Amino acid sequence: METFGEFEFIEFIKKRFPVSHNFMGIGDDCAIISQGGEDLLFSTDFLVEGVHFLKTVSSAEDVGWKAAAVNLSDIAAMGGTPIATFLSIALPESAQGDWAKRFIEGFVEISRLFDVPLLGGDTTSSLRDIAVNVGILGQCPSGKGITRNNAKIGETIYVTGNLGDSAGGLYSVLKGIDKTVDVETLINRHKRPVPRISEGKTLMMSGKVGAMMDISDGIASDLKHIMKASGVGAVVEIDKLPYSKELISVSIEYGWDRCKLAVGGGEDFELLFTAPEDFDKQIDIPIYPIGKIVCGKELIWTIDNKPVDLNFTGYKHF
Amino acid sequence: METFGEFEFIEFIKKRFPVSHNFMGIGDDCAIISQGGEDLLFSTDFLVEGVHFLKTVSSAEDVGWKAAAVNLSDIAAMGGTPIATFLSIALPESAQGDWAKRFIEGFVEISRLFDVPLLGGDTTSSLRDIAVNVGILGQCPSGKGITRNNAKIGETIYVTGNLGDSAGGLYSVLKGIDKTVDVETLINRHKRPVPRISEGKTLMMSGKVGAMMDISDGIASDLKHIMKASGVGAVVEIDKLPYSKELISVSIEYGWDRCKLAVGGGEDFELLFTAPEDFDKQIDIPIYPIGKIVCGKELIWTIDNKPVDLNFTGYKHF
Repeated sequence: METFGEFEFIEFIKKRFPVSHNFMGIGDDCAIISQGGEDLLFSTDFLVEGVHFLKTVSSAEDVGWKAAAVNLSDIAAMGGTPIATFLSIALPESAQGDWAKRFIEGFVEISRLFDVPLLGGDTTSSLRDIAVNVGILGQCPSGKGITRNNAKIGETIYVTGNLGDSAGGLYSVLKGIDKTVDVETLINRHKRPVPRISEGKTLMMSGKVGAMMDISDGIASDLKHIMKASGVGAVVEIDKLPYSKELISVSIEYGWDRCKLAVGGGEDFELLFTAPEDFDKQIDIPIYPIGKIVCGKELIWTIDNKPVDLNFTGYKHF
Repeated sequence: METFGEFEFIEFIKKRFPVSHNFMGIGDDCAIISQGGEDLLFSTDFLVEGVHFLKTVSSAEDVGWKAAAVNLSDIAAMGGTPIATFLSIALPESAQGDWAKRFIEGFVEISRLFDVPLLGGDTTSSLRDIAVNVGILGQCPSGKGITRNNAKIGETIYVTGNLGDSAGGLYSVLKGIDKTVDVETLINRHKRPVPRISEGKTLMMSGKVGAMMDISDGIASDLKHIMKASGVGAVVEIDKLPYSKELISVSIEYGWDRCKLAVGGGEDFELLFTAPEDFDKQIDIPIYPIGKIVCGKELIWTIDNKPVDLNFTGYKHF
């Protein structure tokens, strides 16, 4: 039997569902559904035990937090406002008591932080693994949602925050290194990502952003989605990638390549977007220029303006 | 570790998410979200291999069909119109080729029948089991969606079609009985349920329906949801339950109790609703009276107007 990759499967599905003009469908952070004066946004994310989380790494509360966080981040990636979430959860018998309730507590915690109600879902048993699917409904002013397909040549590429912390945190846990304050900070960034909802709205309201998405698989993979959707190339200046002081310190201590964590690690859930060159001087939130949109379709990495060969790619599920 | 039942878990979640007046949340077939002049409906259903389907019973196309059908049925249960679906799918390596593509073909088939686009989703790998979550967005005129909590004492209980076919079909496959034309019809009702979208809309538009839901777990279980939500009791006349000629014939041949299949089997995806006594004479679609809404909170089964003891309960996931 012939198998295929995740992105190939998505292309297959897209071809079978041509989309009409009222909708923006498969291929962006959210689907957009035009309803009167508002656009509805919808996204959904699947978390499977052993693939997206390990019970040995993340507590039930952490998984509950993250299941909501990754979906809120998809709404942030369009510049939208979340309306409600929907939770589907399949639980093996071993998780049908304490684990499930603690999962809900983590889900409640982040939902209250962003004032988003849980409005429905589905509960079922599973034979072995825990599987969680969260759907999220959001909204934005009609036609204002920021998609991946509008990056323009000459625009600067920005991110809203430090890269690589989440990957560094996961790596710390898997390697079992000593939990210093710095290491705990990285681990927390992995377990409890904070979706950039208000930043996303500020960027949308500015009217200056070309393309935008959230960083879930690492910029090496994520930026290619923007490039492909917009039909452009990109240059990323590796020496401009922003790092936290914690990641710098822990990387130095353990001899990690922090660039590799930043570029290929993913799950930072910062926003990655394009905007005019001096946009960072026009807006009130911290943003970091990391490169340029250029002609062509290549992703070029540079150090001191000289191209370098990077073999880091983002995460693909299959 | 203390475990708990599915419905107890849902109650736990409801308490942690008190719902504001703009929303109708957990506990009905769909969530209702008021947006301007229309109400949005949202529902989601999880199908897990080994729990909801067996690869030995259902083809990939059948699973694709059913994954969409059960969600469309939730929209039908409110009297709504489907707008779009969202598909999350977790695939173990063995299903990442042929199975996945055939799944999509079944999903496409029913989506075209009801003219509903697939607008987004999530694809991921899983370690062992296939897991599929479909979300569906629908709409209905503001305030017109039919919920479970409005059954009134004195109303008649109706269903839109024959009961027990799906359970009979599953039973036929599991028992490996000869596939006569009648048996094939039952199996097809199990594998390819047809959601009652147009019937649901007709019932909603009539303005006469009290409470409504779709039959997914069997009327013994499903009717109790309406009773509990509405604070009423019910009497079901077992001798009035409608059966297909195929189920009658196969049941007689193999000595099955068709009443048990009708009451406890589930997955018929007919609509179960309450309306005035002579409503079946006022409406143009076939509907079948099966009982009455009464005072109290008991579900009483009768034959020839005499109470009988039925120990059939519907399906609970854990």
